[in-house]
Amino acid sequence: MSVPIRTLALRARATVSVLGTQTTNAKHEALQAIADSLMHHIPFLLQENERDLHEGRQNGLSPSLLDRLALTPARIEAMSEGIRTVIALPDPIGEIVHTMLRPNGLFIRQLRVPLGLIGMIYESRPNVTIDAIALCLKTGNAVLLRGGTAAHHSNVALVKLVHDALSSTPLPSDAVQLVTDGDRHAIDDMLRLTGVIDCVIPRGGAALIDHCVRHAHVPIIETGAGICHTYVDASADVEMAMAIACNAKVQRPSVCNAMETLLVHETFAKLHLPHLVETFQTHGVTLRGDPQAMQLVPGLSLATSENFATEYNDLILNIRVVANLEEALAHIATYGTRHSECIVTQDELHAQRFLSTVDAAVVYHNASTRFTDGFEFGFGAEIGISTQKLHARGPMGLPALTSTKYVVHGDGHIRT
Amino acid sequence: MSVPIRTLALRARATVSVLGTQTTNAKHEALQAIADSLMHHIPFLLQENERDLHEGRQNGLSPSLLDRLALTPARIEAMSEGIRTVIALPDPIGEIVHTMLRPNGLFIRQLRVPLGLIGMIYESRPNVTIDAIALCLKTGNAVLLRGGTAAHHSNVALVKLVHDALSSTPLPSDAVQLVTDGDRHAIDDMLRLTGVIDCVIPRGGAALIDHCVRHAHVPIIETGAGICHTYVDASADVEMAMAIACNAKVQRPSVCNAMETLLVHETFAKLHLPHLVETFQTHGVTLRGDPQAMQLVPGLSLATSENFATEYNDLILNIRVVANLEEALAHIATYGTRHSECIVTQDELHAQRFLSTVDAAVVYHNASTRFTDGFEFGFGAEIGISTQKLHARGPMGLPALTSTKYVVHGDGHIRT
Repeated sequence: MSVPIRTLALRARATVSVLGTQTTNAKHEALQAIADSLMHHIPFLLQENERDLHEGRQNGLSPSLLDRLALTPARIEAMSEGIRTVIALPDPIGEIVHTMLRPNGLFIRQLRVPLGLIGMIYESRPNVTIDAIALCLKTGNAVLLRGGTAAHHSNVALVKLVHDALSSTPLPSDAVQLVTDGDRHAIDDMLRLTGVIDCVIPRGGAALIDHCVRHAHVPIIETGAGICHTYVDASADVEMAMAIACNAKVQRPSVCNAMETLLVHETFAKLHLPHLVETFQTHGVTLRGDPQAMQLVPGLSLATSENFATEYNDLILNIRVVANLEEALAHIATYGTRHSECIVTQDELHAQRFLSTVDAAVVYHNASTRFTDGFEFGFGAEIGISTQKLHARGPMGLPALTSTKYVVHGDGHIRT
Repeated sequence: MSVPIRTLALRARATVSVLGTQTTNAKHEALQAIADSLMHHIPFLLQENERDLHEGRQNGLSPSLLDRLALTPARIEAMSEGIRTVIALPDPIGEIVHTMLRPNGLFIRQLRVPLGLIGMIYESRPNVTIDAIALCLKTGNAVLLRGGTAAHHSNVALVKLVHDALSSTPLPSDAVQLVTDGDRHAIDDMLRLTGVIDCVIPRGGAALIDHCVRHAHVPIIETGAGICHTYVDASADVEMAMAIACNAKVQRPSVCNAMETLLVHETFAKLHLPHLVETFQTHGVTLRGDPQAMQLVPGLSLATSENFATEYNDLILNIRVVANLEEALAHIATYGTRHSECIVTQDELHAQRFLSTVDAAVVYHNASTRFTDGFEFGFGAEIGISTQKLHARGPMGLPALTSTKYVVHGDGHIRT
């Protein structure tokens, strides 16, 4: 019998004011205790994870999902190491963002404070449980976790270790709560806890994100789908274009910052498209082309507008030949998901036009879209990649888990 | 027959990429043209406003609502002057928020960019129409306006002048769209334009805000209700406490930063509550007290928990006597709406405890809550006061109408 989600949320909520006034040292002590506990309980974690893997195999989970679910001693060590990375990052809480001395003598400080209680909805990857706990506690936030049901036993085990570790530190164990109700309605309940949860961060497929956008009453941060493009301009360096396009597609096709569609200027395409196609085929990429690409490279299948609107997350690529930069910009405006977009060109004016016009969280000149990532940006761990424009955009590090508060000092000031 | 809201929104949306790349000078030229046009068409505006006032009187609008609706030559001049104030503010667009040179040589800039298309839902005050247009255009945003139906003719006239003024400037007239469909469902349609509207800002009563929170699919910024408290500590300076409490209640009781409940330490209450009550009564304030206040000042009516949870926006005040600071903090945590909260004390430790513990957009030490305001904070005009924690908190000036974008420069960088 699961505890109602509202009860769990209120338990976490009750710790918010204590959490928000913890010193950095106290928070680090707690994070250190969690990191140590993981290393001391590897056999227990493997055993509980094996229960999930067993059920997953029985339920016919795909090999790639089983791989994401699986813990190994090395992965547990990496989780523990991840916590130590978060400890090493600067603590944003208490930072003075602005100070203003008004002409009437009022002294106003804008301070960085925790958001309060954060709800996390995510897929069946046990490492996200630990990442989220570390990032939330470091920023003085309580967290309500709703991981994928396939990782149930692993998450229960991890949160048990976290609770035990916190019990001997200044931080309240109740700050971390795990939703064990596997039913989908638990997500809807979470999305409607107005006044209890300050923000929900959903991570997962487009269907989950869309569901959250439609049903949330609490503020959410969309960590959206990525239909990312690479546009190879007429003046692109050939080798650079090949390397960037190839990296963006094949280095890790399953992630949101991988390329789904390659746009090629017709001048470049006429000279180099056959060779580009050959390179992708060597890497096992299935290719789809627009009519012009099909003319240049016989044997390609047709890329439909539906294909252009699909996030494959797989070794599949659409190729479209465009007449000029403007046609590439129009394609991206139509099919892009405002995640990561790249232009490869030696023409500075074209680069500028692309970078200023494309509406996306991250725009690249002569670099692979695969760099859209909290680690690559130097933020340490990341809680997700925001594709919305409110609050945070792009890779979200610790500051994205904070708000601010104005603290005003007067001397009997009244308004006239 | 009203144009469907989706059509209007798409018209505004189509201007977003052009708007976002305008120079500051071009935006100022457009704002100046609008400011001039208002001054050149005072008789027209008064005539159209009179149609609203006539209908309002027939529909039995209250004198205070009619007053908010009414235009006068002086008020039109103030609206025009307000635009000039916005012109004088720094343009946040294009600001470099951060630069990072990564160890691998990637150069990352975080730039401030417009949000895109902003939806405004607001009450029947014609000046908000002009404020919203000025703030949105200055920040390179398109805006879809849905003002109160009682101001229909005034808003149509204002937006006609804006369109005419913009037609001779570099800014597209379509950037400003007015929803003339007075039906409530138009609000719901606006709240569901995912992918078209980047953000909706509702301004109005608690019922409207609550409706938006529950029905919005697009990101919204809550500009919430204000149940604001003033806590008078045992060590408070008597005259200062009287002045601040009085100012917070009576200077303009109809607004969200006015005080609704006075919390008084029992030591202070025993000595000074009768005199405080007398002062409030001189100003025509109706008073309600908790049992202890009723004992100290016979004749008060009882303040129920429902009273404590009510935003009066009127000359009505709850008084509660508390045993200590902690009881005051607990009351504020229970009944506060996270807007503006004040402590009056000479005790620095108590002030610190209050300022760090109270969870609100603005917390005050020895100053009236009435200062929570964009002008008072030096932001020039304000688009509203946010009571949520995501994106913006407290008075929202121009930066609250912006997002950011990462621009990354590489030299053939690929991820390994």
